[in-house]
Amino acid sequence: MTVKQLSLPELAEACVRLGVPAVGLWREPVAAYGLDATAKLVRDAGLEVTSLCRGGFLTAIDETDRARALDDNRAAIDEAATLGTDTLVLVSGGLPPGSRDLAAARERIADALAALAPYAAERGVRLAVEPLHPMFASDRCVVSTLDQALDLAERFPADQVGVVVDTYHIWWDDRAPEAVDRAGASGRILSFQLADWTTPLPAGVLNGRGQLGDGAIDMRGWRQRVEAAGWTGFIEVELFNDELWARDGVEVLEETARRFVREVF
Amino acid sequence: MTVKQLSLPELAEACVRLGVPAVGLWREPVAAYGLDATAKLVRDAGLEVTSLCRGGFLTAIDETDRARALDDNRAAIDEAATLGTDTLVLVSGGLPPGSRDLAAARERIADALAALAPYAAERGVRLAVEPLHPMFASDRCVVSTLDQALDLAERFPADQVGVVVDTYHIWWDDRAPEAVDRAGASGRILSFQLADWTTPLPAGVLNGRGQLGDGAIDMRGWRQRVEAAGWTGFIEVELFNDELWARDGVEVLEETARRFVREVF
Repeated sequence: MTVKQLSLPELAEACVRLGVPAVGLWREPVAAYGLDATAKLVRDAGLEVTSLCRGGFLTAIDETDRARALDDNRAAIDEAATLGTDTLVLVSGGLPPGSRDLAAARERIADALAALAPYAAERGVRLAVEPLHPMFASDRCVVSTLDQALDLAERFPADQVGVVVDTYHIWWDDRAPEAVDRAGASGRILSFQLADWTTPLPAGVLNGRGQLGDGAIDMRGWRQRVEAAGWTGFIEVELFNDELWARDGVEVLEETARRFVREVF
Repeated sequence: MTVKQLSLPELAEACVRLGVPAVGLWREPVAAYGLDATAKLVRDAGLEVTSLCRGGFLTAIDETDRARALDDNRAAIDEAATLGTDTLVLVSGGLPPGSRDLAAARERIADALAALAPYAAERGVRLAVEPLHPMFASDRCVVSTLDQALDLAERFPADQVGVVVDTYHIWWDDRAPEAVDRAGASGRILSFQLADWTTPLPAGVLNGRGQLGDGAIDMRGWRQRVEAAGWTGFIEVELFNDELWARDGVEVLEETARRFVREVF
Protein backbone atom coordinates (compact mmCIF):
# COMPACT_ATOMS: atom_id res chain seq x y z
CA MET A 1 0.00 0.00 0.00
CA THR A 2 2.95 2.34 0.59
CA VAL A 3 3.48 2.45 -3.18
CA LYS A 4 0.08 1.55 -4.50
CA GLN A 5 0.80 3.65 -7.60
CA LEU A 6 3.07 0.80 -8.77
CA SER A 7 1.68 -2.20 -10.59
CA LEU A 8 2.52 -5.51 -8.96
CA PRO A 9 5.19 -6.34 -11.58
CA GLU A 10 6.74 -2.89 -11.07
CA LEU A 11 6.64 -3.44 -7.32
CA ALA A 12 8.25 -6.88 -7.54
CA GLU A 13 10.99 -5.63 -9.82
CA ALA A 14 11.77 -2.62 -7.62
CA CYS A 15 11.83 -4.76 -4.47
CA VAL A 16 14.31 -7.20 -6.01
CA ARG A 17 16.53 -4.39 -7.29
CA LEU A 18 16.55 -2.62 -3.90
CA GLY A 19 17.12 -5.79 -1.89
CA VAL A 20 13.72 -5.69 -0.23
CA PRO A 21 13.20 -9.40 0.46
CA ALA A 22 9.50 -9.51 1.31
CA VAL A 23 6.28 -7.67 0.69
CA GLY A 24 2.87 -7.33 2.27
CA LEU A 25 0.00 -7.47 -0.22
CA TRP A 26 -3.52 -6.08 -0.27
CA ARG A 27 -6.46 -7.98 -1.65
CA GLU A 28 -7.69 -5.40 -4.16
CA PRO A 29 -4.53 -5.12 -6.29
CA VAL A 30 -4.07 -8.89 -6.04
CA ALA A 31 -7.59 -9.44 -7.36
CA ALA A 32 -7.04 -6.91 -10.13
CA TYR A 33 -3.81 -8.57 -11.29
CA GLY A 34 -5.17 -12.04 -10.66
CA LEU A 35 -4.61 -14.26 -7.62
CA ASP A 36 -2.69 -17.05 -9.33
CA ALA A 37 -0.74 -14.57 -11.47
CA THR A 38 0.28 -12.66 -8.32
CA ALA A 39 1.34 -15.86 -6.56
CA LYS A 40 3.50 -16.78 -9.57
CA LEU A 41 4.90 -13.23 -9.82
CA VAL A 42 6.17 -13.05 -6.24
CA ARG A 43 7.39 -16.68 -6.33
CA ASP A 44 9.36 -16.09 -9.51
CA ALA A 45 10.82 -12.89 -8.05
CA GLY A 46 11.93 -14.73 -4.92
CA LEU A 47 9.86 -12.45 -2.70
CA GLU A 48 8.25 -13.67 0.48
CA VAL A 49 4.71 -12.47 1.19
CA THR A 50 4.69 -11.20 4.77
CA SER A 51 0.93 -10.84 5.11
CA LEU A 52 -2.30 -10.30 3.25
CA CYS A 53 -4.41 -7.25 4.10
CA ARG A 54 -7.16 -7.49 4.93
CA GLY A 55 -10.01 -9.46 6.33
CA GLY A 56 -12.23 -8.35 9.14
CA PHE A 57 -15.24 -6.03 9.39
CA LEU A 58 -16.82 -8.53 11.70
CA THR A 59 -19.07 -6.32 13.82
CA ALA A 60 -22.35 -6.43 11.89
CA ILE A 61 -25.50 -7.23 13.85
CA ASP A 62 -27.66 -8.12 10.88
CA GLU A 63 -27.46 -11.88 10.17
CA THR A 64 -27.18 -11.52 6.41
CA ASP A 65 -24.38 -8.99 6.80
CA ARG A 66 -22.62 -11.26 9.28
CA ALA A 67 -22.84 -14.27 6.97
CA ARG A 68 -21.53 -12.21 4.07
CA ALA A 69 -18.59 -10.96 6.18
CA LEU A 70 -17.69 -14.51 7.22
CA ASP A 71 -17.82 -15.67 3.59
CA ASP A 72 -15.58 -12.81 2.56
CA ASN A 73 -13.10 -13.65 5.29
CA ARG A 74 -13.01 -17.31 4.26
CA ALA A 75 -12.21 -16.10 0.74
CA ALA A 76 -9.42 -13.90 2.13
CA ILE A 77 -8.01 -16.90 4.02
CA ASP A 78 -8.00 -18.93 0.81
CA GLU A 79 -6.23 -16.08 -0.98
CA ALA A 80 -3.58 -15.85 1.74
CA ALA A 81 -2.89 -19.56 1.43
CA THR A 82 -2.60 -19.32 -2.34
CA LEU A 83 -0.17 -16.39 -2.02
CA GLY A 84 1.99 -18.39 0.37
CA THR A 85 1.62 -16.22 3.44
CA ASP A 86 0.60 -17.57 6.84
CA THR A 87 -0.84 -14.25 8.05
CA LEU A 88 -4.16 -12.58 7.30
CA VAL A 89 -4.50 -9.12 8.85
CA LEU A 90 -7.94 -8.33 10.26
CA VAL A 91 -9.35 -4.83 10.62
CA SER A 92 -12.18 -5.67 12.91
CA GLY A 93 -14.83 -3.15 11.91
CA GLY A 94 -16.54 -0.20 13.56
CA LEU A 95 -19.90 0.31 15.19
CA PRO A 96 -22.85 -0.83 13.08
CA PRO A 97 -25.30 1.92 12.11
CA GLY A 98 -27.29 3.11 15.12
CA SER A 99 -25.23 1.23 17.68
CA ARG A 100 -23.21 2.83 20.47
CA ASP A 101 -22.17 -0.39 22.17
CA LEU A 102 -18.42 -0.92 21.77
CA ALA A 103 -18.29 -3.87 24.15
CA ALA A 104 -20.96 -5.78 22.25
CA ALA A 105 -19.20 -5.10 18.96
CA ARG A 106 -16.00 -6.54 20.41
CA GLU A 107 -17.89 -9.66 21.49
CA ARG A 108 -19.18 -10.16 17.96
CA ILE A 109 -15.59 -10.05 16.75
CA ALA A 110 -14.76 -12.87 19.17
CA ASP A 111 -17.72 -14.85 17.83
CA ALA A 112 -16.48 -14.36 14.28
CA LEU A 113 -12.94 -15.38 15.20
CA ALA A 114 -14.33 -18.59 16.68
CA ALA A 115 -15.99 -19.31 13.35
CA LEU A 116 -12.99 -18.40 11.22
CA ALA A 117 -9.93 -19.57 13.17
CA PRO A 118 -10.35 -23.32 12.57
CA TYR A 119 -11.01 -22.73 8.86
CA ALA A 120 -7.83 -20.65 8.66
CA ALA A 121 -5.79 -23.15 10.67
CA GLU A 122 -6.70 -25.94 8.23
CA ARG A 123 -5.13 -23.82 5.49
CA GLY A 124 -2.02 -22.84 7.43
CA VAL A 125 -3.17 -19.25 7.93
CA ARG A 126 -3.20 -17.33 11.20
CA LEU A 127 -5.55 -14.46 11.93
CA ALA A 128 -3.83 -11.24 13.00
CA VAL A 129 -6.10 -8.86 14.91
CA GLU A 130 -4.92 -5.31 14.31
CA PRO A 131 -5.72 -2.63 16.87
CA LEU A 132 -6.33 0.65 15.07
CA HIS A 133 -5.78 4.09 16.54
CA PRO A 134 -8.74 5.20 18.71
CA MET A 135 -9.64 7.84 16.13
CA PHE A 136 -10.97 4.93 14.03
CA ALA A 137 -13.06 3.38 16.82
CA SER A 138 -16.49 4.34 15.51
CA ASP A 139 -16.19 3.72 11.80
CA ARG A 140 -13.37 1.26 11.20
CA CYS A 141 -12.16 -0.70 14.19
CA VAL A 142 -13.55 -0.99 17.70
CA VAL A 143 -10.31 -2.67 18.78
CA SER A 144 -8.28 0.38 19.81
CA THR A 145 -5.38 -0.89 21.92
CA LEU A 146 -2.90 -3.73 21.75
CA ASP A 147 -4.24 -5.01 25.07
CA GLN A 148 -7.76 -5.22 23.61
CA ALA A 149 -6.44 -7.11 20.60
CA LEU A 150 -4.64 -9.52 22.91
CA ASP A 151 -7.73 -9.97 25.05
CA LEU A 152 -9.48 -11.17 21.90
CA ALA A 153 -6.60 -13.25 20.54
CA GLU A 154 -5.90 -15.06 23.80
CA ARG A 155 -9.29 -16.72 23.72
CA PHE A 156 -7.90 -18.86 20.90
CA PRO A 157 -4.82 -21.04 20.40
CA ALA A 158 -1.64 -19.04 19.76
CA ASP A 159 -1.07 -20.82 16.47
CA GLN A 160 -4.47 -19.62 15.22
CA VAL A 161 -5.02 -16.01 16.35
CA GLY A 162 -2.51 -13.27 17.13
CA VAL A 163 -2.06 -9.53 16.76
CA VAL A 164 -0.49 -6.88 14.58
CA VAL A 165 1.89 -4.40 16.20
CA ASP A 166 1.72 -1.18 14.15
CA THR A 167 3.58 1.82 15.54
CA TYR A 168 1.13 4.29 14.02
CA HIS A 169 -1.78 2.89 15.97
CA ILE A 170 -0.18 2.28 19.38
CA TRP A 171 2.67 4.76 19.80
CA TRP A 172 0.72 7.12 22.10
CA ASP A 173 -0.27 4.34 24.56
CA ASP A 174 1.82 4.10 27.72
CA ARG A 175 0.58 0.53 28.21
CA ALA A 176 1.57 -0.61 24.73
CA PRO A 177 5.22 -1.44 25.50
CA GLU A 178 4.11 -3.93 28.14
CA ALA A 179 1.44 -5.22 25.78
CA VAL A 180 4.22 -5.90 23.25
CA ASP A 181 6.00 -7.97 25.89
CA ARG A 182 2.75 -9.78 26.65
CA ALA A 183 2.17 -10.50 22.96
CA GLY A 184 5.70 -11.74 22.49
CA ALA A 185 5.64 -13.96 25.56
CA SER A 186 2.62 -15.84 24.25
CA GLY A 187 3.85 -15.97 20.65
CA ARG A 188 1.04 -13.72 19.44
CA ILE A 189 2.97 -11.15 17.38
CA LEU A 190 2.10 -12.06 13.80
CA SER A 191 3.00 -8.83 12.04
CA PHE A 192 5.11 -5.79 12.86
CA GLN A 193 4.33 -2.65 10.88
CA LEU A 194 5.80 0.83 10.85
CA ALA A 195 4.44 4.26 9.98
CA ASP A 196 5.24 7.61 11.54
CA TRP A 197 2.81 10.05 13.18
CA THR A 198 2.69 13.45 11.51
CA THR A 199 0.30 16.37 11.96
CA PRO A 200 -1.87 18.10 10.95
CA LEU A 201 -3.99 15.08 10.10
CA PRO A 202 -5.83 15.28 6.78
CA ALA A 203 -9.63 15.29 6.54
CA GLY A 204 -10.93 11.79 7.18
CA VAL A 205 -7.60 11.00 8.93
CA LEU A 206 -6.99 7.88 6.86
CA ASN A 207 -4.21 8.92 4.53
CA GLY A 208 -1.87 10.94 6.69
CA ARG A 209 0.62 8.30 7.84
CA GLY A 210 4.09 9.78 7.85
CA GLN A 211 7.29 8.58 6.20
CA LEU A 212 9.65 7.02 8.74
CA GLY A 213 11.56 9.76 10.55
CA ASP A 214 9.19 12.58 9.65
CA GLY A 215 7.06 12.34 12.77
CA ALA A 216 6.75 11.84 16.51
CA ILE A 217 7.39 8.10 16.83
CA ASP A 218 10.61 6.61 18.19
CA MET A 219 10.96 3.93 15.49
CA ARG A 220 14.22 2.52 16.81
CA GLY A 221 12.80 2.19 20.30
CA TRP A 222 9.75 0.28 19.12
CA ARG A 223 11.84 -2.01 16.91
CA GLN A 224 14.08 -2.81 19.85
CA ARG A 225 11.09 -3.45 22.10
CA VAL A 226 9.37 -5.75 19.61
CA GLU A 227 12.57 -7.66 18.91
CA ALA A 228 13.26 -7.97 22.64
CA ALA A 229 9.81 -9.56 22.88
CA GLY A 230 11.01 -12.25 20.50
CA TRP A 231 10.09 -10.96 17.06
CA THR A 232 12.48 -12.22 14.38
CA GLY A 233 10.27 -11.79 11.34
CA PHE A 234 10.15 -9.16 8.64
CA ILE A 235 9.14 -5.59 9.40
CA GLU A 236 6.54 -4.01 7.13
CA VAL A 237 6.32 -0.32 6.30
CA GLU A 238 2.71 0.63 5.65
CA LEU A 239 2.18 4.27 4.71
CA PHE A 240 -1.25 5.47 3.68
CA ASN A 241 -0.34 8.91 2.42
CA ASP A 242 -1.86 10.92 -0.40
CA GLU A 243 1.33 12.92 -0.88
CA LEU A 244 3.50 9.81 -1.19
CA TRP A 245 0.98 8.23 -3.55
CA ALA A 246 1.16 11.31 -5.80
CA ARG A 247 4.92 10.85 -6.30
CA ASP A 248 6.87 8.40 -8.45
CA GLY A 249 6.42 5.01 -6.79
CA VAL A 250 9.96 3.72 -7.30
CA GLU A 251 11.36 6.94 -5.86
CA VAL A 252 9.10 6.55 -2.79
CA LEU A 253 10.18 2.93 -2.38
CA GLU A 254 13.84 3.94 -2.55
CA GLU A 255 13.27 6.71 -0.02
CA THR A 256 11.40 4.33 2.25
CA ALA A 257 14.24 1.79 2.11
CA ARG A 258 16.77 4.50 3.01
CA ARG A 259 14.62 5.73 5.88
CA PHE A 260 14.15 2.17 7.09
CA VAL A 261 17.92 1.75 7.43
CA ARG A 262 18.47 5.18 8.95
CA GLU A 263 15.54 5.44 11.36
CA VAL A 264 14.80 1.90 12.44
CA PHE A 265 18.29 0.43 12.97
CA MET B 1 -16.87 27.64 23.21
CA THR B 2 -19.94 25.80 21.92
CA VAL B 3 -21.39 29.16 20.87
CA LYS B 4 -18.32 31.31 20.52
CA GLN B 5 -20.12 33.35 17.87
CA LEU B 6 -22.08 34.95 20.72
CA SER B 7 -20.68 37.89 22.66
CA LEU B 8 -20.49 37.32 26.41
CA PRO B 9 -23.54 39.53 27.09
CA GLU B 10 -25.51 37.65 24.40
CA LEU B 11 -24.38 34.36 25.94
CA ALA B 12 -25.36 35.41 29.46
CA GLU B 13 -28.77 36.65 28.33
CA ALA B 14 -29.49 33.47 26.35
CA CYS B 15 -28.40 31.24 29.23
CA VAL B 16 -30.68 33.03 31.65
CA ARG B 17 -33.62 32.91 29.24
CA LEU B 18 -33.12 29.17 28.56
CA GLY B 19 -32.61 28.27 32.20
CA VAL B 20 -28.99 27.30 31.75
CA PRO B 21 -27.68 27.96 35.27
CA ALA B 22 -23.92 27.86 34.72
CA VAL B 23 -21.34 28.40 32.04
CA GLY B 24 -17.73 27.41 31.34
CA LEU B 25 -15.62 30.28 30.07
CA TRP B 26 -12.49 30.50 27.92
CA ARG B 27 -9.69 32.93 28.56
CA GLU B 28 -9.59 34.63 25.17
CA PRO B 29 -13.19 35.95 25.06
CA VAL B 30 -12.91 36.88 28.74
CA ALA B 31 -9.76 38.90 28.03
CA ALA B 32 -11.42 40.54 25.03
CA TYR B 33 -14.49 41.58 27.04
CA GLY B 34 -12.43 42.40 30.10
CA LEU B 35 -11.83 40.20 33.15
CA ASP B 36 -13.60 42.37 35.71
CA ALA B 37 -16.41 43.18 33.30
CA THR B 38 -16.94 39.46 32.67
CA ALA B 39 -16.96 38.70 36.40
CA LYS B 40 -19.60 41.39 36.91
CA LEU B 41 -21.61 40.23 33.90
CA VAL B 42 -21.97 36.63 35.06
CA ARG B 43 -22.50 37.66 38.68
CA ASP B 44 -25.27 40.09 37.74
CA ALA B 45 -26.86 37.42 35.53
CA GLY B 46 -26.83 34.93 38.39
CA LEU B 47 -24.72 32.49 36.39
CA GLU B 48 -22.20 30.20 38.02
CA VAL B 49 -18.87 29.79 36.25
CA THR B 50 -18.18 26.06 36.09
CA SER B 51 -14.58 26.30 34.93
CA LEU B 52 -12.05 28.41 33.11
CA CYS B 53 -10.36 26.98 30.01
CA ARG B 54 -7.50 26.78 29.80
CA GLY B 55 -4.09 26.65 31.31
CA GLY B 56 -1.49 24.06 30.53
CA PHE B 57 1.04 23.61 27.72
CA LEU B 58 3.55 22.56 30.31
CA THR B 59 5.84 20.27 28.31
CA ALA B 60 8.52 22.69 27.07
CA ILE B 61 12.15 21.69 27.61
CA ASP B 62 13.63 25.14 27.07
CA GLU B 63 13.92 26.96 30.40
CA THR B 64 12.67 30.30 29.06
CA ASP B 65 9.66 28.60 27.52
CA ARG B 66 8.97 26.75 30.76
CA ALA B 67 9.14 29.92 32.83
CA ARG B 68 6.82 31.68 30.41
CA ALA B 69 4.32 28.81 30.57
CA LEU B 70 4.33 28.86 34.38
CA ASP B 71 3.77 32.62 34.40
CA ASP B 72 0.88 32.24 31.99
CA ASN B 73 -0.67 29.54 34.16
CA ARG B 74 -0.38 31.68 37.28
CA ALA B 75 -2.20 34.41 35.36
CA ALA B 76 -4.90 31.91 34.40
CA ILE B 77 -5.26 30.88 38.05
CA ASP B 78 -5.71 34.53 39.03
CA GLU B 79 -8.33 34.94 36.32
CA ALA B 80 -10.24 31.87 37.51
CA ALA B 81 -10.30 33.25 41.04
CA THR B 82 -11.55 36.61 39.81
CA LEU B 83 -14.31 34.92 37.78
CA GLY B 84 -15.42 32.99 40.85
CA THR B 85 -14.70 29.49 39.60
CA ASP B 86 -12.67 26.97 41.57
CA THR B 87 -11.57 25.00 38.49
CA LEU B 88 -8.89 25.74 35.91
CA VAL B 89 -8.80 23.22 33.07
CA LEU B 90 -5.31 22.25 31.89
CA VAL B 91 -4.49 21.03 28.40
CA SER B 92 -1.08 19.66 29.15
CA GLY B 93 0.78 20.23 25.86
CA GLY B 94 2.28 18.03 23.17
CA LEU B 95 5.81 16.95 22.35
CA PRO B 96 8.30 19.81 22.10
CA PRO B 97 9.93 20.23 18.67
CA GLY B 98 12.36 17.42 17.94
CA SER B 99 11.33 15.28 20.91
CA ARG B 100 9.82 11.81 20.70
CA ASP B 101 9.80 11.12 24.43
CA LEU B 102 6.23 11.00 25.71
CA ALA B 103 7.20 9.74 29.16
CA ALA B 104 9.63 12.61 29.74
CA ALA B 105 7.02 15.12 28.61
CA ARG B 106 4.56 13.67 31.13
CA GLU B 107 7.18 14.05 33.88
CA ARG B 108 7.64 17.72 33.02
CA ILE B 109 3.89 18.16 33.46
CA ALA B 110 4.19 16.69 36.94
CA ASP B 111 7.03 19.13 37.70
CA ALA B 112 4.90 22.05 36.54
CA LEU B 113 1.91 20.88 38.60
CA ALA B 114 4.16 20.82 41.65
CA ALA B 115 5.07 24.45 40.98
CA LEU B 116 1.51 25.59 40.27
CA ALA B 117 -0.73 23.63 42.66
CA PRO B 118 0.20 25.51 45.86
CA TYR B 119 -0.20 28.86 44.09
CA ALA B 120 -3.63 27.79 42.89
CA ALA B 121 -4.64 26.40 46.28
CA GLU B 122 -3.90 29.73 47.97
CA ARG B 123 -6.43 31.30 45.58
CA GLY B 124 -9.09 28.61 45.98
CA VAL B 125 -8.51 27.18 42.52
CA ARG B 126 -8.01 23.50 41.65
CA LEU B 127 -6.09 22.30 38.62
CA ALA B 128 -8.05 19.94 36.37
CA VAL B 129 -5.82 17.80 34.14
CA GLU B 130 -7.73 16.96 30.98
CA PRO B 131 -6.80 13.87 29.01
CA LEU B 132 -7.22 14.57 25.31
CA HIS B 133 -8.00 11.97 22.66
CA PRO B 134 -4.85 10.12 21.53
CA MET B 135 -5.09 11.80 18.14
CA PHE B 136 -3.83 14.94 19.91
CA ALA B 137 -0.87 13.23 21.62
CA SER B 138 1.90 14.74 19.53
CA ASP B 139 0.83 18.33 19.15
CA ARG B 140 -1.58 19.20 21.94
CA CYS B 141 -1.66 16.85 24.91
CA VAL B 142 0.59 13.92 25.81
CA VAL B 143 -1.95 12.90 28.47
CA SER B 144 -4.17 10.59 26.42
CA THR B 145 -6.20 8.54 28.90
CA LEU B 146 -8.10 9.18 32.09
CA ASP B 147 -5.78 6.78 33.89
CA GLN B 148 -2.75 8.81 32.81
CA ALA B 149 -4.41 12.00 34.03
CA LEU B 150 -5.15 10.33 37.36
CA ASP B 151 -1.58 9.04 37.63
CA LEU B 152 -0.49 12.68 37.44
CA ALA B 153 -3.20 14.10 39.68
CA GLU B 154 -2.76 11.55 42.44
CA ARG B 155 0.75 12.77 43.13
CA PHE B 156 -0.89 15.85 44.66
CA PRO B 157 -3.56 16.50 47.29
CA ALA B 158 -7.10 15.86 46.05
CA ASP B 159 -8.14 19.39 46.91
CA GLN B 160 -5.43 20.76 44.61
CA VAL B 161 -5.26 18.63 41.45
CA GLY B 162 -7.94 16.53 39.75
CA VAL B 163 -9.10 15.58 36.27
CA VAL B 164 -11.60 16.45 33.58
CA VAL B 165 -13.92 13.71 32.31
CA ASP B 166 -14.82 14.58 28.71
CA THR B 167 -16.77 11.99 26.76
CA TYR B 168 -15.25 13.03 23.45
CA HIS B 169 -11.75 12.17 24.59
CA ILE B 170 -12.33 8.94 26.51
CA TRP B 171 -15.40 7.23 25.02
CA TRP B 172 -13.37 4.66 23.01
CA ASP B 173 -11.35 3.47 26.04
CA ASP B 174 -12.53 0.25 27.66
CA ARG B 175 -10.60 1.19 30.81
CA ALA B 176 -12.19 4.62 31.11
CA PRO B 177 -15.33 3.54 32.99
CA GLU B 178 -13.20 2.08 35.79
CA ALA B 179 -11.01 5.18 35.67
CA VAL B 180 -14.15 7.25 36.25
CA ASP B 181 -14.84 5.16 39.35
CA ARG B 182 -11.23 5.64 40.46
CA ALA B 183 -11.45 9.39 39.95
CA GLY B 184 -14.73 9.61 41.81
CA ALA B 185 -13.51 7.51 44.72
CA SER B 186 -10.64 9.89 45.37
CA GLY B 187 -12.66 13.06 44.78
CA ARG B 188 -10.69 13.91 41.66
CA ILE B 189 -13.46 14.66 39.17
CA LEU B 190 -13.36 18.43 38.80
CA SER B 191 -15.22 18.83 35.52
CA PHE B 192 -17.57 16.69 33.44
CA GLN B 193 -17.85 17.65 29.78
CA LEU B 194 -19.90 16.28 26.90
CA ALA B 195 -19.39 16.18 23.15
CA ASP B 196 -20.36 13.50 20.66
CA TRP B 197 -18.06 11.62 18.28
CA THR B 198 -18.96 12.08 14.64
CA THR B 199 -17.09 11.13 11.47
CA PRO B 200 -15.56 11.88 9.06
CA LEU B 201 -13.22 14.03 11.10
CA PRO B 202 -12.30 17.38 9.53
CA ALA B 203 -8.74 18.27 8.52
CA GLY B 204 -6.73 19.05 11.63
CA VAL B 205 -9.34 17.09 13.66
CA LEU B 206 -9.88 19.93 16.13
CA ASN B 207 -13.28 21.27 15.18
CA GLY B 208 -15.35 18.17 14.50
CA ARG B 209 -17.00 17.54 17.87
CA GLY B 210 -20.54 16.44 17.33
CA GLN B 211 -23.78 17.78 18.76
CA LEU B 212 -25.14 15.51 21.51
CA GLY B 213 -27.00 12.62 19.93
CA ASP B 214 -25.45 12.94 16.49
CA GLY B 215 -22.63 10.49 17.07
CA ALA B 216 -21.33 7.25 18.53
CA ILE B 217 -21.20 8.06 22.23
CA ASP B 218 -23.68 6.72 24.77
CA MET B 219 -24.20 10.04 26.58
CA ARG B 220 -26.74 8.71 29.05
CA GLY B 221 -24.47 5.81 30.01
CA TRP B 222 -21.51 8.08 30.72
CA ARG B 223 -23.64 10.51 32.70
CA GLN B 224 -24.91 7.65 34.83
CA ARG B 225 -21.41 6.30 35.35
CA VAL B 226 -19.96 9.67 36.36
CA GLU B 227 -22.86 10.37 38.70
CA ALA B 228 -22.54 6.91 40.21
CA ALA B 229 -18.92 7.81 40.91
CA GLY B 230 -20.18 10.68 43.03
CA TRP B 231 -20.38 13.61 40.64
CA THR B 232 -23.09 16.09 41.64
CA GLY B 233 -21.79 19.17 39.82
CA PHE B 234 -22.81 20.84 36.61
CA ILE B 235 -22.29 19.14 33.25
CA GLU B 236 -20.64 21.19 30.53
CA VAL B 237 -21.30 20.79 26.81
CA GLU B 238 -18.18 21.70 24.87
CA LEU B 239 -18.54 21.48 21.10
CA PHE B 240 -15.74 22.65 18.86
CA ASN B 241 -17.51 22.54 15.54
CA ASP B 242 -17.10 24.75 12.51
CA GLU B 243 -20.61 23.97 11.30
CA LEU B 244 -22.20 24.90 14.62
CA TRP B 245 -20.12 28.07 14.80
CA ALA B 246 -21.36 29.11 11.36
CA ARG B 247 -24.99 29.04 12.56
CA ASP B 248 -26.94 31.48 14.70
CA GLY B 249 -25.52 31.16 18.20
CA VAL B 250 -28.78 31.41 20.12
CA GLU B 251 -30.33 28.76 17.87
CA VAL B 252 -27.36 26.48 18.55
CA LEU B 253 -27.65 27.07 22.29
CA GLU B 254 -31.37 26.25 22.19
CA GLU B 255 -30.68 23.10 20.19
CA THR B 256 -27.93 22.10 22.59
CA ALA B 257 -30.21 22.58 25.59
CA ARG B 258 -32.90 20.39 23.95
CA ARG B 259 -30.36 17.72 23.09
CA PHE B 260 -28.99 17.84 26.63
CA VAL B 261 -32.41 16.99 28.02
CA ARG B 262 -33.18 14.36 25.40
CA GLU B 263 -29.83 12.56 25.12
CA VAL B 264 -28.25 12.85 28.54
CA PHE B 265 -31.19 12.23 30.90
